[in-house]
Amino acid sequence: MQQSVSLVTLGVADYERAKRFYEALGWSVAWEADETSFFQANGVVLVLWGREKLAADMGISDESEGWGGIALAHNVASRDEVQDVIELARANGAEVTREPSQTFYGGYAGAFRDPDGHTWEIAHNPGFGLTNDGSVTLPAN
Amino acid sequence: MQQSVSLVTLGVADYERAKRFYEALGWSVAWEADETSFFQANGVVLVLWGREKLAADMGISDESEGWGGIALAHNVASRDEVQDVIELARANGAEVTREPSQTFYGGYAGAFRDPDGHTWEIAHNPGFGLTNDGSVTLPAN
Repeated sequence: MQQSVSLVTLGVADYERAKRFYEALGWSVAWEADETSFFQANGVVLVLWGREKLAADMGISDESEGWGGIALAHNVASRDEVQDVIELARANGAEVTREPSQTFYGGYAGAFRDPDGHTWEIAHNPGFGLTNDGSVTLPAN
Repeated sequence: MQQSVSLVTLGVADYERAKRFYEALGWSVAWEADETSFFQANGVVLVLWGREKLAADMGISDESEGWGGIALAHNVASRDEVQDVIELARANGAEVTREPSQTFYGGYAGAFRDPDGHTWEIAHNPGFGLTNDGSVTLPAN
């Protein structure tokens, strides 16, 4: 598994309020779709998305113990790599909460919780570019 | 506020277990001090640190509602910038949970929770380098 964090997604209760807050801090949305904001930061991309949708996408309940509504995403270049990283995590004691499968956005992803319950999505998203260091490249809006 | 996430810190219950897990996934610690591991990723740095210590450093209780044990850090080049970002966040409705003050590591930091309770530390750490895009540069171990 390459050492990279492609996206940090903050689950939010009120999408417009969250977006207004980050814009008021001076952040600009690079790409937006279906009430999801992507902010290009230094390599990593910060994402705002409905908290319940994020939990469901991770394969967990939004009331799950230890879940604070933040998910890290590690994007990879192929479906096979998704499978490989999920198996590596499973073999090392992670709880796989979403078996690798197709995503609503046309990609392929699995998810696990680390030994402390922190959630990682391992994703192949053909709609995003991917640089050699594991950063995603957002499409033009 | 520049659009950058300098560090993502995962609060952990058992430091050695967490470190073993990430090392088993193929990650290498770039710098380690006082049971804190820093992994250099793509711009952003992933950190493992005791969850209770992280909560205390953010100025919140580890049992605080909505706290999942993850903190984002935004590093800046001076103490004045720490103050400025904290005031900007406060003016836009963030709850400031740690007023800007000296840190145990010789830096200066404040912290706030965004409207959904996600925690941000705004820090000036003279022990780390800081690139123009807001990424930190770790010292040699």
